[in-house]
Amino acid sequence: MRLRNIKGANTIIENSKYIIIDPSIYKGKYQSLFKNDNPIHLEIGMGKGKFIVEKALKNPNINFIGIEKYDSVIVRAIELLDNLNIPNLKLIRGDARYLEDYFEKDISLIYLNFSDPWPKDRHEKRRLTHKNFLIRYEKAFKKDFKIIMKTDNRKLFEYSAQSFVDHNYKINKMSLDLHQDDYDNVVTEYELKFHNKGYPIYMIDVYKQNTND
Amino acid sequence: MRLRNIKGANTIIENSKYIIIDPSIYKGKYQSLFKNDNPIHLEIGMGKGKFIVEKALKNPNINFIGIEKYDSVIVRAIELLDNLNIPNLKLIRGDARYLEDYFEKDISLIYLNFSDPWPKDRHEKRRLTHKNFLIRYEKAFKKDFKIIMKTDNRKLFEYSAQSFVDHNYKINKMSLDLHQDDYDNVVTEYELKFHNKGYPIYMIDVYKQNTND
Repeated sequence: MRLRNIKGANTIIENSKYIIIDPSIYKGKYQSLFKNDNPIHLEIGMGKGKFIVEKALKNPNINFIGIEKYDSVIVRAIELLDNLNIPNLKLIRGDARYLEDYFEKDISLIYLNFSDPWPKDRHEKRRLTHKNFLIRYEKAFKKDFKIIMKTDNRKLFEYSAQSFVDHNYKINKMSLDLHQDDYDNVVTEYELKFHNKGYPIYMIDVYKQNTND
Repeated sequence: MRLRNIKGANTIIENSKYIIIDPSIYKGKYQSLFKNDNPIHLEIGMGKGKFIVEKALKNPNINFIGIEKYDSVIVRAIELLDNLNIPNLKLIRGDARYLEDYFEKDISLIYLNFSDPWPKDRHEKRRLTHKNFLIRYEKAFKKDFKIIMKTDNRKLFEYSAQSFVDHNYKINKMSLDLHQDDYDNVVTEYELKFHNKGYPIYMIDVYKQNTND
């Protein structure tokens, strides 16, 4: 995504009622933030927020948290949200590399939508489905591990499927052309643009039982 | 594949030097047939044989066995082979359901190329990647389990990937558009026709260690 500097972005972000300024305060106890025990679904790399806002509006009994690292992008989500009151949605300006600082046994499901494919071999470790990230995610999960990934990037999809399976995930559902399938799909901004060009959208829904306790 | 009755097919098949008339004789001891200890690769549903003949010609240090259940199809392979002398290739007119009668710890690799997708739910058990077939295959493998599958059928591919993973296979390589990749691919008759229409060919190469001995 092309990034622009937005003047005053920092002030807009820090004043938003949706932003969790210091997530470490709620680590392991997000009930106190949401004032309920509903499951929490996390989107890593939420972009301008179309997906997570729609998800939150459609599913009032699930709490949603979106993470985005770019100020210029998260500020667009906040502009979209400003006039809405969605109590089951919160946003973090942060980086998936520091997930352990934000969550501990809090999350029921992680969404990875159209993550950066980092196509070069030497950038493999930056892909959000690299094993180092999968290990980070597992500490964030409340109980069992559930990840739903969508991408238009074939190589990232192939890499990710292999990485999940190497990490002992099983496949709940896989689609190699999601928009042809009968699936209750909430579309991201990026997905819409790409699908309109006639390319397939790949989706994989994986799970693993947590046998740690 | 459209099937025609071919007059005299039975006689042609039974007189071919490539045909193993009674595979049960060699079960567990195919060295005595091939007169060497080279690994054996098996193609289930070899059709008219283009793939396995090319594979055998390219890899003289591997023995190849093709299985095909339709007389009218295997007879075409035999016609193709009649004027060639390929000592590392044998054919079985048979059915994957009876694989246990043919092999026991004989096979190093199984190819499944463009198998019948059996799209209806009630025919699921007929798909060559249904768990009942995976169990049959494991008895045929000499040591570790290796399967390479190609198909143009998206639903069969999605189903099969899930089935392999459910069965604890790991992914060695996956391609969702094989002809775009740098891969030493031997093309089947069917694949050529389908690829020429511009559709992607899906490939998955899976393995599992045999921990039974």
